[in-house]
Amino acid sequence: VRVGSGFDVHAFEDGDHVTLCGVKIPHDKGLKAHSDGDAGLHALTDALYGTIGAGDIGDHFPPSDPQWRAMDSTVFLKHAVALVAEKGGRITNADVTLICERPKVGPHRDAMRARMAEILGIEIERVSVKATTSEQLGFTGRREGIAALASATVVFAAR
Amino acid sequence: VRVGSGFDVHAFEDGDHVTLCGVKIPHDKGLKAHSDGDAGLHALTDALYGTIGAGDIGDHFPPSDPQWRAMDSTVFLKHAVALVAEKGGRITNADVTLICERPKVGPHRDAMRARMAEILGIEIERVSVKATTSEQLGFTGRREGIAALASATVVFAAR
Amino acid sequence: VRVGSGFDVHAFEDGDHVTLCGVKIPHDKGLKAHSDGDAGLHALTDALYGTIGAGDIGDHFPPSDPQWRAMDSTVFLKHAVALVAEKGGRITNADVTLICERPKVGPHRDAMRARMAEILGIEIERVSVKATTSEQLGFTGRREGIAALASATVVFAAR
Ligand SMILES: [Mg+2]
Ligand SMILES: [Mg+2]
Ligand SMILES: [Mg+2]
Repeated sequence: VRVGSGFDVHAFEDGDHVTLCGVKIPHDKGLKAHSDGDAGLHALTDALYGTIGAGDIGDHFPPSDPQWRAMDSTVFLKHAVALVAEKGGRITNADVTLICERPKVGPHRDAMRARMAEILGIEIERVSVKATTSEQLGFTGRREGIAALASATVVFAAR
Repeated sequence: VRVGSGFDVHAFEDGDHVTLCGVKIPHDKGLKAHSDGDAGLHALTDALYGTIGAGDIGDHFPPSDPQWRAMDSTVFLKHAVALVAEKGGRITNADVTLICERPKVGPHRDAMRARMAEILGIEIERVSVKATTSEQLGFTGRREGIAALASATVVFAAR
Repeated sequence: VRVGSGFDVHAFEDGDHVTLCGVKIPHDKGLKAHSDGDAGLHALTDALYGTIGAGDIGDHFPPSDPQWRAMDSTVFLKHAVALVAEKGGRITNADVTLICERPKVGPHRDAMRARMAEILGIEIERVSVKATTSEQLGFTGRREGIAALASATVVFAAR
């Protein structure tokens, strides 16, 4: 059994929606990024890479490369899921924490879990999305951006 | 086996003690919160919910609900422990990192571990409390608040 | 099976190199610390202590103690590895995320993984080093310092 952890940040900018954990949410700001700025999926993608020593998301999908512009981040997560499967890994659970004052995550939690479960190929009960604020402290508290923390557990055959 | 992670923050305010990892510590500040502000227990509670996809602490104990005012956070942790047990989970270890310049955690570590071990129903050797500073950087470095990072490992029968 | 997590921060200061994950990297800044300031190894050392409830790095190597001045942080990691082995633990993987705008980690990743694998006594495939920025937000975004997040998985016999 192996565990990976991931962390990611995206800054708010003008816009009318954010995409978090694979779900588009109406919001009075957008997220600045070369991709769709889905910090939740980026942190989880990195956590999966972390279980197999497969570098990080910036390594596989360089932000300088125009082909990843405005990219749907589920593409990144699918890549990490495929690499883990290739190595014989079976994902037993995934846990994402979104750190922001807004948007409210609760109303979208189950849609996020369903979307992630589908991509990870596991039951929804094994997928967790949590939210917390930083109590108005730091850059997330000042609403300058969103941070995400993720962990993923993977069991490998015969280890 | 599944692993959950959690993160929480509380801001300092006027006061004469803080409660961290279930232990009351005399301090020249207090922690602002609807509950007792125990960021360590909140992060660990969320880590446990994260192993079973059971939402987050704000979901089960909404800060807007007056009945959780000044609440002892061990109530929240006990709730998560009970939910994990209901799903057939056995907690194998818990690890909390407190990020702050002050108070000093070391003198209280073993009391914190004992209190948490009791609530988690596991041996103290399986419970870890660590502390680190952010070297005077960021909101924890400016002593505006305390952050906590937690992870919990849970083994489920026949998985 | 048990999982530990760790977090560490070091501030930049004048200098011409940083040491991260055991590898010296030429840079236009140095890292301020009593030791060599290797936030990556410090976070991982703490993650290992976290699996056995063995306190934290500041507990074993007090920064106030002059004998740890400018210390090679591999000494700290070796200490944690030895404690885990003493308890009958076998490390199955280690994952470190470095949070900074600069230096670029990618070119040094495999050297870092090789160095850490050697100290941990595991195959390089089980060791991960990832990097991310905080998108110019917060103290890492302002290039005031480097943060590191780590997780370590350890399997204990007969548990
Ligand atoms: Mg990103
Ligand atoms: Mg809280
Ligand atoms: Mg350090």
